[in-house]
This record gives sequence, structure tokens and C-alpha cells, in this order.
Amino acid sequence: MKAIEWLGDRVRFIDQTKLPGEETYIETADYRVIGEAIVSLRIRGAPLIGISAAYGLALGALGSRAVGPDDLRSDIRRISTELGRTRPTAVNLFRALRRIEDAAATPDSAERIRAAVVAEAVAFHLEDEAMCRRIGENGARLVPDGAIILTHCNTGALATGGAGTAQSIITTAHRDGKSVRVYATETRPALQGARLTTWELMREGIDVTLITDGTAASVMNRLHIDLVVVGADRIAANGDTANKIGTYSHALAARHHGIPFYVAAPTTTIDPAVASGDLIPIEER
Amino acid sequence: MKAIEWLGDRVRFIDQTKLPGEETYIETADYRVIGEAIVSLRIRGAPLIGISAAYGLALGALGSRAVGPDDLRSDIRRISTELGRTRPTAVNLFRALRRIEDAAATPDSAERIRAAVVAEAVAFHLEDEAMCRRIGENGARLVPDGAIILTHCNTGALATGGAGTAQSIITTAHRDGKSVRVYATETRPALQGARLTTWELMREGIDVTLITDGTAASVMNRLHIDLVVVGADRIAANGDTANKIGTYSHALAARHHGIPFYVAAPTTTIDPAVASGDLIPIEER
Repeated sequence: MKAIEWLGDRVRFIDQTKLPGEETYIETADYRVIGEAIVSLRIRGAPLIGISAAYGLALGALGSRAVGPDDLRSDIRRISTELGRTRPTAVNLFRALRRIEDAAATPDSAERIRAAVVAEAVAFHLEDEAMCRRIGENGARLVPDGAIILTHCNTGALATGGAGTAQSIITTAHRDGKSVRVYATETRPALQGARLTTWELMREGIDVTLITDGTAASVMNRLHIDLVVVGADRIAANGDTANKIGTYSHALAARHHGIPFYVAAPTTTIDPAVASGDLIPIEER
Repeated sequence: MKAIEWLGDRVRFIDQTKLPGEETYIETADYRVIGEAIVSLRIRGAPLIGISAAYGLALGALGSRAVGPDDLRSDIRRISTELGRTRPTAVNLFRALRRIEDAAATPDSAERIRAAVVAEAVAFHLEDEAMCRRIGENGARLVPDGAIILTHCNTGALATGGAGTAQSIITTAHRDGKSVRVYATETRPALQGARLTTWELMREGIDVTLITDGTAASVMNRLHIDLVVVGADRIAANGDTANKIGTYSHALAARHHGIPFYVAAPTTTIDPAVASGDLIPIEER
């Protein structure tokens, strides 16, 4: 299962609002369909939003009627602004759009700009895939055989351009032959844990138990958790992390019970312009 | 609004599964309808379950065809066992059934037994109502004017035979003229906070904000909470408390943020036979 694929002149992505009941894919050459998909959470997960926005901007460049390079760059800037409004909390989104815009800056013809932005979007996707793989490899070393792992929200293949961030640690440990069991929190209000994480982990053959968000602390206390792994929407320069609501509650409970708590994210999630989490308004958390 | 009323030879109760969409009342003289209502959560809340079970057993005594006192006592014991199976976690349920059985122990005719069990069930209800009032009066002293209060699940008139336990503190402070604002957690999985607490508090004219369970810790950290009030299903002899899933998570977060955390419950919730919470199996928490 690939959450998103570049098909040369169009994009194919899975409609995550239909999961786990239906596995529906949408193919489009229209950047507006990508924008709508981000707004409506058909596409979600910070890294996947960035990749989708990059492909969206590439589609916008391919679809533009501009003939000269400056006109095309002007169209690209306009479309970038439009896509930037779809999910203002995901720093990956802006980084991706900036990279595509930068790739469009120097070529001296519209044709070369189009080739450059497509190549840059594909490269951005491949880089994310490689980062997921390395997160999995590095993180799996922290997972003992027989580990019981708690995770929150969805950070798997559905959230990224590869195997996931926090979930990549789980699936890599499993593929390495380690026995792992997972408690997945349902993740209110949009139920990404209940709908997406359980679906992905069951496809991988991993033993997963779905719990309500409020059950996590009790599982740490009355049963057993070896480690907690979560992803991040944005990481400030000092390490402060903005992530799905509920993450902070699990972090406090993990600290109380002396359970290691890991935040797994690609470097594209780090926002050096934000010194600490205090500067991120609560609306964006 | 009264969650349950004794109408002389039958009981009238609100069907809580229909709230907040519909305010539907059920009238019955059949103890089996009470038992089904407890199982299906039409009736819930530890104190209300106890009162309903007491009325249920009284209805069972009224409906029994037994002529002699010993035959009637035998029927009462059988019905008590049946009602005791409806919600094995609520200690109030067993206390209530025991009290009704005890009231049936000495009268020397079936008629006198029936009169005694009805009187005992009504007395049990009135005692709970008085305890709710005293919890409200005592607790309201802990609430400063302008207080912002977090509560979990539903502990109001819908959970008791009176004004509630933890919620009685809130409504009493409000009726005393204090300005109070409430954050109510939705309380997964059955949404008693979202469906019942917000409905009750809005009827009282109290400013209430509904949040997901996982949001509570972030509200403590980023916004402000003056105190947390919750109810209890069962309190062990050492003070250990069993309550709706999620309570423990809020308690840890409150402790981390130095926020007072109060458990409000009538004495009928204390189970002296249980030395500590460790003895209560997790299935019952």
C-alpha cells in the first residue's frame, strides 16, 4: 500500500477518510483536488502533507497555460500560496512548497521549470521514504524483543511517503523478527488510531489492541508498556514538540511510570524558525 | 428533571441512552425492565444504579405472587441475585440490594414485607438525595468565585438520586452566586460527558466547554484549571478509588500541574471489604 504515488503526469492517493471500511484511491492531475484532500483529511500526516503539496505544486506547474518562464513562476507562486492555506500547522507543507518554488527559480524556460519542479517533488518524496527507513532502522534498536509499545494517532505509511515515522520503528522491529505487541490509542476526535493505525498494523500481522485515549495511563499502571513512540507535526529549535492532541497526556503518564517516550520524525519536521513550543499558538497544537 | 421517581406502585426513569437528542421517560412496574435498563446504560451512575436496584427489588416484591412471608423472602433473594448481575462493578448496587433484603428479613407477613421493602427503597433514595446536597454544600466551599473546573464523565442528577456528586459541587457553587466555568471531557467510549454532563450543565445555565479526554492535560498546561472534581464507582478502605476510565490520566496531569483533584462520592460508594484498589480487578475499573 502506497499512500501517494507520482504517475508521471498525475498523482494517485488513498482516500484516508474511507478507511478502514473501503480502500479507495483517487487519481488526479488537478492540484485543487490535492488541496481539497488535505483540507478534508483524505490526505493527512505531516510528512505526507508535505509530499502531497510538493506533487500538487508540480501538477499546478504542468497544468499552467503560462508560456514564458516568469509567467509560469508567477502561477507557481499563486498556487503555492493556495496550497499553503490548506493546513497551516504542518511545517512540512511550507518546506515542501518552498523547495518546489526554489527549484523553479533558475531554469530559463517554462519547459525546464516544469521538468525541474517535477524532479524536485519526486526527490522530496524519495528523501522522505529514505528518512522513514532510517527512522525505522535507528528506532528498532531501541525496541527489545517481546516489547509492548504504546502509540498515539497514525504515523505509518498513511502518514508519510514511506514506512512511517514512529510506526516505522514498530514495523521494522517486527520485520527484523522481534516479537512486538502494540496498544494503539483511538485518537479523538478524528480517530486516526482506531481507523488507520490498527488497519495498517493488522495488515503487517502485528498484534494490536485498540484503546481509548483515556485508557493509556491505566495500561501503563495496571498492565505493562515498555516504550511509547509518537510522531510530530512540528518540532521547535529547542526540541519542544507539537503533535496530535492527547500526546502531552501520554507523555506525562509515561514520565510518571518511568516509561521511555520517543518522538520520531524526519528532519523536515523541525522548524528552526520557532525557538520553543511556547511560540506556537495553542490553536496550532 | 429527576433521573428516577417512585410513583407508589411503579417507577419512572429517564432513558439516558436517548440523551441529549430526546428526553424520554420509561414507566414500569416490572423489575426486569429496571435490570435491563442498568445493563443497557439507560440507567447509569453508581448512586443511581443503587437506587434503581432498590426500587427494582421493591417492584419485584410487589409483583411476586408469594402469599407467605418465607415464600416472598425467597422470591426477593432470587430477584436480588438477578439484579446483582446487571452491573457487578457498582458497590452501591450490592449495598442497596442488601438493605432491601435486610428490610424483608423480620416482618411476619408478606403484606408487611412489601410495605417494609418499599419504605426502605424510598428511604435509600432520600438518603442519597440528602448526601448529594451535603456533598454540594461541603464541596462548594472549595470553589473560588470565578473558578474554572474540569470534570470527567457524568456525576450529576442523571447519576444519582439527587443533585449529583462531583457535579453537585459545581451546581451548588453556581446557585450560591459564584461564577464558574466548566471543561467537561467527552468520556470515551460511551460519551457520558459529551451527552449528559453538557446537557445538564447547559440546563443549569453554566458555561461548559466540551473537550476530548486527551485535551484535559493540555488545557491544564496551556490554559487554566483551578480544580478537578470527579465521582467514584467504588472507594476502597484505604481511599483508593475506582472510577470511569480516564480518571487516572486526569489525576496524573492534575498532580503534575499542582491542581487540586477532588473525588466526590456518598458514603455508600465506600467498600470497606476492599482494602485497596489493588484488590479490584482491572476489568472492574
